[in-house]
Amino acid sequence: MSEEARKDRLAPVVETVDAVREAVIAAKRRGLRVGFVPTMGALHAGHRSLIEAAKRECGFVITSIFVNPTQFAPHEDLAKYPRPLDADRRLCAAAGADLVFHPGVETIYPSGFSTFVTVEGLSNILEGKFRPTHFRGVTTVVCKLFQMVPADFAFFGQKDYQQQTIIRKMVAELNIPIRTRVCPTVREPDGLALSSRNVYLSHDERRSALALSRSLTLAHEYLAQGGSDFDLIRQRMWALLKETPLVEPDYATLVDPDTLEDVSTAVHTVVALVAARVGQTRLIDNDVIDLPG
Amino acid sequence: MSEEARKDRLAPVVETVDAVREAVIAAKRRGLRVGFVPTMGALHAGHRSLIEAAKRECGFVITSIFVNPTQFAPHEDLAKYPRPLDADRRLCAAAGADLVFHPGVETIYPSGFSTFVTVEGLSNILEGKFRPTHFRGVTTVVCKLFQMVPADFAFFGQKDYQQQTIIRKMVAELNIPIRTRVCPTVREPDGLALSSRNVYLSHDERRSALALSRSLTLAHEYLAQGGSDFDLIRQRMWALLKETPLVEPDYATLVDPDTLEDVSTAVHTVVALVAARVGQTRLIDNDVIDLPG
Repeated sequence: MSEEARKDRLAPVVETVDAVREAVIAAKRRGLRVGFVPTMGALHAGHRSLIEAAKRECGFVITSIFVNPTQFAPHEDLAKYPRPLDADRRLCAAAGADLVFHPGVETIYPSGFSTFVTVEGLSNILEGKFRPTHFRGVTTVVCKLFQMVPADFAFFGQKDYQQQTIIRKMVAELNIPIRTRVCPTVREPDGLALSSRNVYLSHDERRSALALSRSLTLAHEYLAQGGSDFDLIRQRMWALLKETPLVEPDYATLVDPDTLEDVSTAVHTVVALVAARVGQTRLIDNDVIDLPG
Repeated sequence: MSEEARKDRLAPVVETVDAVREAVIAAKRRGLRVGFVPTMGALHAGHRSLIEAAKRECGFVITSIFVNPTQFAPHEDLAKYPRPLDADRRLCAAAGADLVFHPGVETIYPSGFSTFVTVEGLSNILEGKFRPTHFRGVTTVVCKLFQMVPADFAFFGQKDYQQQTIIRKMVAELNIPIRTRVCPTVREPDGLALSSRNVYLSHDERRSALALSRSLTLAHEYLAQGGSDFDLIRQRMWALLKETPLVEPDYATLVDPDTLEDVSTAVHTVVALVAARVGQTRLIDNDVIDLPG
């Protein structure tokens, strides 16, 4: 197929549990490794990098596209969340996905549904403080997807740092037989982390949103130069966000990479985490920072 | 092997997740169906009937023996729960189990464990009112076991009616690729349902414990003869338990087979459920009753 034809191609779609599971089993029977990239659609270059990473490691790659209602609070943007299915299928095909799993809401959550998977502790801090049922929705749907799509590897973005930490803990603690891979955050040239929610930003908000990545750079440079006053750097990150027009920070902190608890004493690696509302749009970003010495 | 030798044989044991998963995968590779009987050990003829049912349907049968701490409340009998491993392994071998999975507590619940599976609603009523975290412990460990032991079929006893209802809902709603089978309760000749906890009963308590099955018989006969006053029969079941020395009823009711909600109007099938403390020992029993007409 020419590059031109490949660009226009839509990845094939299945919508039922039986169809996706059979596709995985058939691929395994052919001796292929199966890679899985769960998404909510509205795919961007970040998702594309996950699919490409999957394709490098696996002979058969499935992307799921499901805007998961249980991870949205009632006041959040479930209804207006973008759902550009054809564009998503085109990106999937171009990035190397062999199949798209695009189930309906009633397939994932039949009437009377009441089973939930929760990673306690990690789900209640940071994002969990601002979105109390969010991670319960994420872990429930990802556990379900891992049962429906019994892949060898699953790929997540580092952009959602707390999410991938929680999912990896769930996978380990429920003994789900899948290996997880975490891929680097993809950014705009000016540093803004890619997010499906960036489309909500006005021109002015788009400019202000750079405060998130700038606050991470500030932390990175301070720590790389041997700075060790974690509280001071938290205050500076917060101040940078707070002083930016249209930006209302939720948190800005330095945490342990595994427990996500605030670090206070010397460690090898910290994760700088920020969350802020930019106008009506809530954005998050992070940076994993190895400390010198 | 002679019948005599078979009686003395201990079923082989594995203790690690890798070993049990590899055994299941190897059996499937040999083209065998795999049956799984999860237990807490202290095996009796009820468990034996589950293993035998598994063996009739599957070429390779695994029994797990794990006294699951998360389904016991702090005041319950975790420490004194019987753990006769050699006798259990002998029963497993005699009943046809090919392998026993006997993991340590630290294998199932490593330090820092915090992931739980909950079936909301069903877990809060009946047994759940008296044992608030019990079913969360059950669903969590069974979900884990189903990931470690990717069998084709899993076998549960009807004796724990609410438990098997909750597990089947979890399996369906988390899309776990295993089929569940429910096998009839096994009883002593005088009607007492077999339970690993029956060993706790004194001579007098053992006699009083018959009140549970008698109250079910009372409901069964009344309903089979066309009786339809559900509240009346609930009162009579309760009274029978209450009037028996050493017995303190927790509940006695007629419920819908799926929702476990109290039935009040005409239905095809009801489940009579009773729970009572007999001395210090808490016992449950049930009967699924098809209504005439």
